[in-house]
Parts: sequence; C-alpha cells; structure tokens
Amino acid sequence: MPAARNLVAVEPATRPEMHQAIARAVEEAGGTVVPIDEASCLMFADPMAADAFPELIAQATNVEWVQLPYAGVETFLRHLDPAYTWTCGKGVYAPPVAEWIMTALLTAFRDIPTFARANRWPVQTGRNLLGSRLAILGGGGITEAFLPLIEPWGCDVTVVRRQATALPGATRTVTTDELDVVLAEVDAVIIALALTPETIGIIDADRLGSMRNDAWLLNVGRGGHVVTDDLVAALRNNEIAGAVLDVTDPEPLPDGHPLWGLDNCLITPHVGNTPAMGLPLIVDRIRENVARWIAGEPLIGPVDVELGY
Amino acid sequence: MPAARNLVAVEPATRPEMHQAIARAVEEAGGTVVPIDEASCLMFADPMAADAFPELIAQATNVEWVQLPYAGVETFLRHLDPAYTWTCGKGVYAPPVAEWIMTALLTAFRDIPTFARANRWPVQTGRNLLGSRLAILGGGGITEAFLPLIEPWGCDVTVVRRQATALPGATRTVTTDELDVVLAEVDAVIIALALTPETIGIIDADRLGSMRNDAWLLNVGRGGHVVTDDLVAALRNNEIAGAVLDVTDPEPLPDGHPLWGLDNCLITPHVGNTPAMGLPLIVDRIRENVARWIAGEPLIGPVDVELGY
Repeated sequence: MPAARNLVAVEPATRPEMHQAIARAVEEAGGTVVPIDEASCLMFADPMAADAFPELIAQATNVEWVQLPYAGVETFLRHLDPAYTWTCGKGVYAPPVAEWIMTALLTAFRDIPTFARANRWPVQTGRNLLGSRLAILGGGGITEAFLPLIEPWGCDVTVVRRQATALPGATRTVTTDELDVVLAEVDAVIIALALTPETIGIIDADRLGSMRNDAWLLNVGRGGHVVTDDLVAALRNNEIAGAVLDVTDPEPLPDGHPLWGLDNCLITPHVGNTPAMGLPLIVDRIRENVARWIAGEPLIGPVDVELGY
Repeated sequence: MPAARNLVAVEPATRPEMHQAIARAVEEAGGTVVPIDEASCLMFADPMAADAFPELIAQATNVEWVQLPYAGVETFLRHLDPAYTWTCGKGVYAPPVAEWIMTALLTAFRDIPTFARANRWPVQTGRNLLGSRLAILGGGGITEAFLPLIEPWGCDVTVVRRQATALPGATRTVTTDELDVVLAEVDAVIIALALTPETIGIIDADRLGSMRNDAWLLNVGRGGHVVTDDLVAALRNNEIAGAVLDVTDPEPLPDGHPLWGLDNCLITPHVGNTPAMGLPLIVDRIRENVARWIAGEPLIGPVDVELGY
C-alpha cells in the first residue's frame, strides 16, 4: 500500500539549520514529517552528503519522489535512479547571483575598491552604469534573473549564447561566433556560463586583447572560463580596466597569488549565492513542491534522469 | 530690437571642456553661438564662476533668458534678477545619485569593502538586497530617480517626507513624525534630504539607537544630516551594521579622522554626481531648452526668483 502523500521524510539531519527550515516548510505545506520508511517522498536535506543517499534510500519502502537541494545535479548523478521522480532546485539560486552581477558592475564602475582601501579623502572618480553597454556570456537562469534588474538602467545589453534565441530584456542576442565583435564594443563583459569543453578558457589573451582598455571583466561562472595567467598579464598591462571575480582558477585563490596584489582586481569568495542566501530560496521551492505533491499537481524543477539535468 | 532667438551666448569660457560641449549642444539644437552683446540668451558655462556673472551680464543688451548649470541655485542667489527668465539643471543630476544609492546598498549588503581590503581568500559573507526593507528620507528628485531602480528587487520601501504624498514605486510614504518607528524596522536607512534647519542633525545618537543593529546607514544628502561624533560612537559599539557616506561633516573628512579607521564605515568622496557624470546630463538639458527657446516653447527647470529655487 503506498504511503499517504502528506507523509514526508526530511533526511539526513546532518545540517540542523537546513533540516529544521525544511521540516517547517513541509508542515506549512500541509505535510507531516515522518521517518523514511513511512514516507511517500524524501526531501534530501544536506547538499554535502550525497554519499549518504544509498544507505538512506535503502530504508525507504514507499518513497516515490525525491527533492534535491541542488541547482545542478552533477554531484548526485551517480545516484539518480529512474524508479523515482526527481526534482532539484533549478533556478531558485539565480536571483542572488544576478544580484552579485549588479553589485560587481556598480562596484567596478563607481570605483568602490579604491574608496574602500583609502584612509584619506580620495580623488573623485567613477563612471555611470546608467546607459552603458554590457555583454553577458550565457543565456541561462542567471542571465534571465539579471535582465529584469538591469532593465531600468537604460543599458545596451547583448547576450552571447549558443543559439541566438531572444531573451526578454536583452537589447539583442547573438551567437558565440560574434563574441570577438561584441567584446570590442562593450564597457563590461559578464561571464555567466556553465563550464563545458566549449567554454573552458573562453576568455584568453586574444579575447582580453579584443576588449576595450576601459572595459571590465566580471566572472560569476567558473574560474576555468578565464585563463588566469592571461588575465594577470592583461591587468598588469592595463589592457582592460579591471576584473571582478567571484570564481577563480585555482579556487580558492592561494595566498600570494599575483591577483591579490593588483589594484584593478577585486576577488569575492564565491558568494554569488551563499548557503545563507540559498536556504530560504530552496525552502520556498520545497514548500511549493510539497503542496503540489499533496494536491497531485505537477512538480517544479523536474530532473531528467536520462539527460542528467 | 530684440536679438533673434537662435543667437546664443555660452559664457564664461573658463572651463574649456564644458564650454565646448555646451556650444556643440546649442548648435545641435539649431542655435548659433555668438558674443553676449549679440545674444538673446546666455548659457552660463562654469558652475565655479558665479562671481563672473555681473561683469558678463553687463555686456548683454538683448539677453532675456539665462540657463544655469546648477541643480540648486544657492550659490547664485545673489545674482538672480527678475528682469530675466531663469532656468537651472533641476533634476538632471538625480540619476547618478540614485545610482550611487544602489551602489552603496549592494556594496554594504554584499560586504564589498571587506573583500576589497582582503589579500587572501576571505570568509563567505554577505546578505541579499533582494526582498529587504528600506527607508529613504526625503521625497525629492533623488528618491524619484531611485524608486524605478529598486523596483525589480521586491523590497519594502518606505519614503519618509514632510507630507505623506505617495510616490510611485514606494511601498508607502509616511511623514517625519513616524521616523523613529520606521528606523526600528528597516535593513537600511538612506538619507536623501536637502539640508534645512529641520533636517540638520536628524540622525543623532537617539536615532542611531532606534536603528536595528544589523541595519546600514547611507548618506547621500549632506554631511550635516548626521551628527558625526554620534555616528562614530554607534559604529564603534556596533549599534548599527555600518555606514556608507558620500558626504561628511566636516567635508572633506580630514586625515586621521576616526571614521577612516572603522571597518564598518565606507567613505566615498562626494561622488553621487561628479562633474564628469553631470556634464552630458546638463548638456542634454541645454540642447532641449535651446530648441524650446527657438521654437517659443516653455523651458524646463524654471527658477522662481522670489522663492529662490
């Protein structure tokens, strides 16, 4: 006999704050938190504990659906089993990352690092983001969350992606073939790509050389999108205005790395989305999905087990 | 005989870059730049040279209209003569200042000063501006320019002003009577007031004490709105999360001032709107007004000589 749909397991309990927040959301959605052997579904409650999954699911007798806490399921791929319905946190973490992009653009254009490092009244500098020209590499969830934020700024925004499918809020969308042309025109280049064999090292010495020398490079994708040594050289030679990096290669950036010593480089420690920012967002998604599960409605964020995302 | 309306003086010529940009705008609007004794109107072209005005206007024979480069005409008050029609740059400089507010909010919430000062991989910190509660003191042009920028962030925005006239984009508008209640509720307090006898020292030890200890104070009004010694004490005792100040009292902040040494204080050197940011904005206004003058249409930004603004 299948378990009643309102019976929900929240496991493992290795992250007390996350466990408690998810359990509360389950109850707010009309569910009851029960041990896994009584549950109809499992809210997987520790993103760092993928390896605990096999032992956990072995105790389940009636679980039909598993909700994962990840945006991307790379670290969980080996456990995906088509016997279950899978959902993940697809899209929920994009708004804080889009916020990071706005932060980095404004920080760069308005010279905040210079002011933050000053211990006496500095020279008046800075330029406006308002009305500037931007290129964003990648047309995924982060870009979709960023475009509404930049909309009131009157910027000219070019999205560079594999297919030139238009995105609402972008001035234009072009394919990667046109990357070099776009790089030469814009005031800032924002990397918001997934790391794939095609995108590793996409910003190298040649691409940095294509950029204007008053243009900023922002990376909120993965460190591997930028050839670090080429970036160090470009920053040292003022070939670009500067870089704001939330991801680095290597990461964390080791003590004494040349990027630490450059005035025109700002490193943020992979905080596009932090666990503290992400928890309320995944909790909201879980609350919504548990309500849908109990009502027999379609779930948000389905994972295609065959495709692996 | 009055001069033809397309004959425009651009004086003084003491700021070559500004003079040239305004002269170009006059021509783009269909005007011809002529000496002041031939002109129907004067574009006053050096904000630092108010004292040059009497000698200049003494040479005019047919000038009917004077366009000033200022947003507020305090420094020009003694020269205002009701014999002329006066316009100023009212409102044109608000967008860069609104941009500064967004910069300061994001810089504060996302811990950019900490990251900018680091020379090794820092701890992951920061919180989201998205969905936060903000109070903005003042309902003038800066607030009007700020509200559209914050609109996509899903914030709860309370405008505190003399009259509770609603502003589009604000969640609510309240009067100054309710200031203490509002201060206790919000994640950030933004000062965007004019300095008047009622607003001098509006943020003092009591008001800082009313704020949450995780709330930020931003000042883009005037240094005199905040009692500096009270702010130093509040920052030292972590009574508030921190402060971002574009204006200080005294200003410029002298070397060795205690605010320079506080990790939870960021000073920007009165760059809400810099001359470099403002020039294209006033030039746009002048182009528009010269076109209107030639066409005999109403001018934008009239100054009421009796009221002095």
